[in-house]
Amino acid sequence: MVRVGVIGYGYWGPNLVRNFFETPGAQVVRVSDKRLDRLKQVQARYPTIRVSEGHRELLQDPEVDAVAIATPVCTHFELAMQAIAAGKHVLVEKPMASTAAEATKLIEAAEAAGRTLMVDHTFVYTGAVRKVRQLVDDGSLGDIYYYDSARVNLGLFQHDVNVLWDLAVHDLSIMDYVLPYRPVAVSATGVNHVSGGKENIAFLTLFFDSPVIAHMHVNWLAPVKIRRTLIGASRKMIVYDDMEQSEKIKVYDKGITVNQQVNREKLYEIMVGYRMGDMTAPQLDISEALRVEASHFVECIEKKQRPITDGEAGLRVVSVLEAASQSMRMRGHPVELPPARRG
Amino acid sequence: MVRVGVIGYGYWGPNLVRNFFETPGAQVVRVSDKRLDRLKQVQARYPTIRVSEGHRELLQDPEVDAVAIATPVCTHFELAMQAIAAGKHVLVEKPMASTAAEATKLIEAAEAAGRTLMVDHTFVYTGAVRKVRQLVDDGSLGDIYYYDSARVNLGLFQHDVNVLWDLAVHDLSIMDYVLPYRPVAVSATGVNHVSGGKENIAFLTLFFDSPVIAHMHVNWLAPVKIRRTLIGASRKMIVYDDMEQSEKIKVYDKGITVNQQVNREKLYEIMVGYRMGDMTAPQLDISEALRVEASHFVECIEKKQRPITDGEAGLRVVSVLEAASQSMRMRGHPVELPPARRG
Amino acid sequence: MVRVGVIGYGYWGPNLVRNFFETPGAQVVRVSDKRLDRLKQVQARYPTIRVSEGHRELLQDPEVDAVAIATPVCTHFELAMQAIAAGKHVLVEKPMASTAAEATKLIEAAEAAGRTLMVDHTFVYTGAVRKVRQLVDDGSLGDIYYYDSARVNLGLFQHDVNVLWDLAVHDLSIMDYVLPYRPVAVSATGVNHVSGGKENIAFLTLFFDSPVIAHMHVNWLAPVKIRRTLIGASRKMIVYDDMEQSEKIKVYDKGITVNQQVNREKLYEIMVGYRMGDMTAPQLDISEALRVEASHFVECIEKKQRPITDGEAGLRVVSVLEAASQSMRMRGHPVELPPARRG
Amino acid sequence: MVRVGVIGYGYWGPNLVRNFFETPGAQVVRVSDKRLDRLKQVQARYPTIRVSEGHRELLQDPEVDAVAIATPVCTHFELAMQAIAAGKHVLVEKPMASTAAEATKLIEAAEAAGRTLMVDHTFVYTGAVRKVRQLVDDGSLGDIYYYDSARVNLGLFQHDVNVLWDLAVHDLSIMDYVLPYRPVAVSATGVNHVSGGKENIAFLTLFFDSPVIAHMHVNWLAPVKIRRTLIGASRKMIVYDDMEQSEKIKVYDKGITVNQQVNREKLYEIMVGYRMGDMTAPQLDISEALRVEASHFVECIEKKQRPITDGEAGLRVVSVLEAASQSMRMRGHPVELPPARRG
Repeated sequence: MVRVGVIGYGYWGPNLVRNFFETPGAQVVRVSDKRLDRLKQVQARYPTIRVSEGHRELLQDPEVDAVAIATPVCTHFELAMQAIAAGKHVLVEKPMASTAAEATKLIEAAEAAGRTLMVDHTFVYTGAVRKVRQLVDDGSLGDIYYYDSARVNLGLFQHDVNVLWDLAVHDLSIMDYVLPYRPVAVSATGVNHVSGGKENIAFLTLFFDSPVIAHMHVNWLAPVKIRRTLIGASRKMIVYDDMEQSEKIKVYDKGITVNQQVNREKLYEIMVGYRMGDMTAPQLDISEALRVEASHFVECIEKKQRPITDGEAGLRVVSVLEAASQSMRMRGHPVELPPARRG
Repeated sequence: MVRVGVIGYGYWGPNLVRNFFETPGAQVVRVSDKRLDRLKQVQARYPTIRVSEGHRELLQDPEVDAVAIATPVCTHFELAMQAIAAGKHVLVEKPMASTAAEATKLIEAAEAAGRTLMVDHTFVYTGAVRKVRQLVDDGSLGDIYYYDSARVNLGLFQHDVNVLWDLAVHDLSIMDYVLPYRPVAVSATGVNHVSGGKENIAFLTLFFDSPVIAHMHVNWLAPVKIRRTLIGASRKMIVYDDMEQSEKIKVYDKGITVNQQVNREKLYEIMVGYRMGDMTAPQLDISEALRVEASHFVECIEKKQRPITDGEAGLRVVSVLEAASQSMRMRGHPVELPPARRG
Repeated sequence: MVRVGVIGYGYWGPNLVRNFFETPGAQVVRVSDKRLDRLKQVQARYPTIRVSEGHRELLQDPEVDAVAIATPVCTHFELAMQAIAAGKHVLVEKPMASTAAEATKLIEAAEAAGRTLMVDHTFVYTGAVRKVRQLVDDGSLGDIYYYDSARVNLGLFQHDVNVLWDLAVHDLSIMDYVLPYRPVAVSATGVNHVSGGKENIAFLTLFFDSPVIAHMHVNWLAPVKIRRTLIGASRKMIVYDDMEQSEKIKVYDKGITVNQQVNREKLYEIMVGYRMGDMTAPQLDISEALRVEASHFVECIEKKQRPITDGEAGLRVVSVLEAASQSMRMRGHPVELPPARRG
Repeated sequence: MVRVGVIGYGYWGPNLVRNFFETPGAQVVRVSDKRLDRLKQVQARYPTIRVSEGHRELLQDPEVDAVAIATPVCTHFELAMQAIAAGKHVLVEKPMASTAAEATKLIEAAEAAGRTLMVDHTFVYTGAVRKVRQLVDDGSLGDIYYYDSARVNLGLFQHDVNVLWDLAVHDLSIMDYVLPYRPVAVSATGVNHVSGGKENIAFLTLFFDSPVIAHMHVNWLAPVKIRRTLIGASRKMIVYDDMEQSEKIKVYDKGITVNQQVNREKLYEIMVGYRMGDMTAPQLDISEALRVEASHFVECIEKKQRPITDGEAGLRVVSVLEAASQSMRMRGHPVELPPARRG
C-alpha cells in the first residue's frame, strides 16, 4: 500500500485525489493547500483524508510515502526537492520545473535518494496516445516524416508561464513518448496581446538529424477548441483528434511513392505517385488516463521500476520549452538543443 | 467587348476559358497550349475558339485584347512581359512571378504601356473572403490580434516550386486583402521528404509593426484536407473553414477583457476576463469566384480601373514567398521584408 | 432544508445523490438499494449518508422529507404510492409509470396528500432545451411546422421496456415542454431483433389538430451516437444537436415564402420562394441539468409551487408511450390519444 | 455507336447530355425542350447537337437509337411509350412512372418491342452504393437488421408530386439494389405545410417477411442538408453519409451478442453483450455515377443485356411509393404491397 499526500487542491489536485482514492494499492492520506475553502471541500467529500494549510506538515508526516505536487510551475522544483529530501517518492505536475538546470538537479537528487521521480505527462497514459506509440513501434507507419499538432482554445491565461509552457508541454510530452527520435534544434515564434503578460499564441518547429520535422501550434485566444495532431509517414498516416468523442485515432493507408527515372530529354526526373487506401479508426482503451497513470506510479514505487514518464522525459520536455522561449524572443532564430544525457 | 486569349490549357486553363466564355462583355477567341491533345479538347468543347500550339501566334493576334496566363510559375514573367509588349492587358496566374524583381519589372512595364495588369488571386473573389474583409473594415472585429491558417492535403507535388509557392500563396493573397497591415519580417521552416525535390511541408510566421502575428501552415503530404483560417481580434473572432459546404464563415462573439488592478500585496495585477457570446454564420454570396474575377478584369480594362488584385498585391505576395524561402533554408532565421512601395 | 432519501443506486442514482449533495437547501440523508456492493460504494464516497437494503426503512425514516426514485420502470408506481402514503414529496424517474392509469392515480394521490410530485424529465432543465422553449415562446420561430428527433446509439438493451419507453421518453418530455400544442393521435412502427426481447428500434409519428407533425426515431442498435432534433417553423428553424460539445443549438434564418398568384393560363398557382439568411448559435447556460432540477424540486417543495415537470407532464408522456406501443403492435395503425385533462 | 436523343433540358437534362457526350460508344445527336432559351444553351455549348422544340421530331429521327427522358414525372409514361413505339431504347428518369399500372405497361411494351428499358436510379451507380452492395453480398455484414435513411434539405417544392416521389425514390432505389429482401407492407405518415400543395415532410416504414425493418425520412423544409443511411446487421454495421466529402462509407465492427441462460431464479434470461471493434472507411471508386450509368446503358443496348436498374426495379420502387402515399392519407394505416412479379 502506497500512502499518498497531495500538495495543491486547485484545478488538477481534485483529479489526483479522486484517482489515487480509487486506485487499488494506493491510499490518499493527506492534502495540503494554502486556501482554507479548498481544504473544506476536501473534508466535505473525503472525511477520512487529513488536511493542512502548509505543505511542511504533509512532508514531515511519516505516514506519507509519496507526494503528488499540483501547484504552480514556479514552485515545482522547490517542493519536489523538499519532498525527496524528506524521503518521499514524487509525482510532479508538468512541466517538471522552470529550467533544464532545475530538472537535472531533481533527477540527480531522486537518484541519490533512491526515490521514484515521475512527471505527470497525463496524455501519455491515454488509450489514444498508447495506440499511436504502438503503431509507430510495430512499423505500421513506416518512416516518420512529420509530427504536427495544434492545441488552441479560449483558455485560461496563465500569469507565470507563456502558452508554450502551458499547452505545448502536452504535445512535447506526447511526441517525446511516441517518436523514436530526439530533436536537435528549435525555432519558435509568438506574441503576447495583453500588456504585461506572457506570449499567448506561439508556433514551434523542431528539427531532427533527419528530414523529420515537428511543429506545434498553441493559442489561448482562439474562438474554438482544436486538439489535433497529424503524423505523416511513408506507409500510413495518422490523424489524432482529441475532440472526437470516439474515433480519436484515424489511420490512413495513404501516401506517396517516389520513383526516379530518366525522361525523354535524358534527364533524371522524380515521379511522385499517390496511394489512396482505406482509413481505419481502431477501437481504443477508454480507461481514464490518470487512473492508469496512478497505478503505474504505485507499481513503479513498489517494484522499483523506472516510470515511462520519468525525470529524463520531464527534462527533455523542459529543455525544448526553455530553448523555444529563447528562440521566440529572437523572432524564430534557431536555437540548438543540448544533447540528451541518455534515453 | 474584351476579346480574351488564354495561354495554357492544363489544370486551371479550362476554368479560365469556361468562365470568360460565360462572362458578359468577354469573348474567348484563342487558346494556346504546347500539347496537341489539350487543344483537341478545346476544339471539341468550344468549336468557335481558335487554337495554336505556340503562344506567339496568340500574342500577335490583333483580335486578342487581353491575355490570361495559366502556365508554370517559371514562365509567368517572360510570357507576361511579351504580352504587355504586344499591347495586351494581362491576367496572370498566382504567384505572379518567381522573384520580387521580376514582379516589379512587370508592374513597371504595364504602367509604362498603360495596360491593365491583374493577378489571379482567386480566393479574394469568393463570398467568404469578401465577407471577412467587410467584417474587418466595418470594425466588427475590433483590433486584429492574429491571422492563422492551415492548408494541407495529399496534394500534387510540384516540380518547379516548393509548397509555399503552391499553397501559402493562397493564404498570403487572402491575408493581403483582408488585413489592413503589411508584414515587416518573416520566419519560415520546412523540409523536403523526396530526394531531389522541393520542401513539401512548411510553416511561416509573419511579423508586423505591432503585436499582430500571422502564421501559415502548408503541407502536400497530409492524409486529410484542411483549409482553415482563424482570425483573432479584440471584439469578435472568425473561423473560416473552406471545407464546410455552407457556413464557411463563423463569427464568434468571444474574447477576453483585460483589467489592471492593484492587488492585496499592492502589486499591479493583470486580470483577464472571458466573454462568451453567440456565434453567427452569415449567409454568403455563392457566386463562383472566378466568374466574379473575370467580370472584374473586364470592368477594369473597360473603365481603366486598378484591379483589387493588382500587380502591387502580386508583388507583396511574391516578396513574402521569396523571403520565406530564404528563411526556411536558415531553419527559421528571421528575414526582413522590403518596405512596400505603396498600398 | 429538504432532507432527501434516494431509492436505487444503479446507473442514475449516483447522479441524483451527487447533485442533491451539492444543492444548497438539500441534504442527502439516506440511500437504499437491494445490492450490498452498491451501498458500500455510497458509504465509501459519502460516509455521512445512512444506507439500507430495503426501501421501507427509508420511507419510514422521519428525517426523510422527500424521496427520489431511481429504480426500474415497473416499480415506479408502487414505490411512489408508498412514498406519498408515508407523507414524502416525490421525484420519480422517467417514465413516471408503466401506464397512464397508474400515472393518473399518482397525480391524484399526491394532490390528495398535498405533496409535491415531480417527474425527472432531466433534459427539460438543460440550457439547450430552455433556449428552444424561449425561442418558441417569444415568437422567434413563428408558426411551428414540425418536431423531428433522432436518438440512436449502441445502447443498453432494457429487459422490462421497449426502446420507446427508454429513449423516446426523452424526446417526448422535451417536446411536451417546448411545443404549445398537444398531440391527438400517434402512429408507431418498430421491431425487435432479439428473440424474446422488446422492440429495439422504433419510429413514432404524432399528429396534432393542425398541420404540425412530430416524429421520433429511436434505436438501441446503431453503430454511432446521434441525438439530433430539427424544428421547422415559418420564420426560423432550429437544429438541436446534443452531441455537439458547444453550439448545441443552431437557429437558421431560413425558410419558405408562399405566394398564390394567377398564372398565364388564368389558373391559381402556388409560388414557393426560399429565404436564406444567417445561422446563429446562441450562447447557452452550461449548468448541469440535474443540478438545476434538484434546486427546482427543493424550491417547489418549500414554496409549494407546481414543478415544471409535474405529474401532468409525466402523464402526457406516458399516455403517448402507451398508445405508441399499441400502434406498433398493429404496424403503424394510428391510435387516438386521450384528451389531456388539462395543461 | 449508340446515338442518343435527350428529351428535357431542365435541371437533370444537362447532366445527361454532358455524360453521354463524353461516354465512348455514345453520341448525343439531338435534344428537345419546349423552352427556346434552354435550346439556345444547348447550341451555345454543343454546336454539333441538333435541337427541336417538340419531342416528336426527336422520336421520328431515324438517327436516334436511344432516348433519355428527363421531364416531369407525369409525362414519363406517355413519352416512354411513344419512344418504345418508335423503336427506341429508353432511359427514363426516376420515378419511372406515376403508377404501378403504368410501370407495368412500360415493361411489357419494351419486352414486346425488344427494346432496352432502363430507369435512371443514379445513386445505384455511385462507388458508395456499390460498396454497400458488395459488403451485403459477401457476407461481411451478416444478417441485416434494418435500413434507415434520412434525406432532408431546404429543397425545391415540387408541384406535381409529394416529397416521397421526389426524395424517398432515391432511398427506395438504393435499398432495392443493396438488400436481398423485398418489402411486404408499408406505413407512412406526412403532412403538407403549403395550402394547396403536396406533402413536404414524410416518414415511411417498410415491413418484410422477417424482423428486418426499413425506414425513410424525407423533408423539403429542413434548415440543413442531411443524407445519411444506417444499416444495422449482426456482424458489422454501416453508416453511409453522402454529405461527407470522402469517407462516405464507414463500416463498424460493432454489435450485440445474444445469449440465453438460466439465472439464479431458474428463469430463462436473455443476456445481451456488446462488441466494440474498429471502424473502417473503405476507399471508394469516385467515378461520376452518371458516367458509369451511361456506359452501362450503352453496353446493355449493344449486348442486349438486362440493366441493373431495369423496368422491374423501377416498378418495385413505384409500387412502394404508390402504397406509401395511400398509407399517408390514412395517418400510417399499413398497406400491403403487391407481390413482385419476379426478381
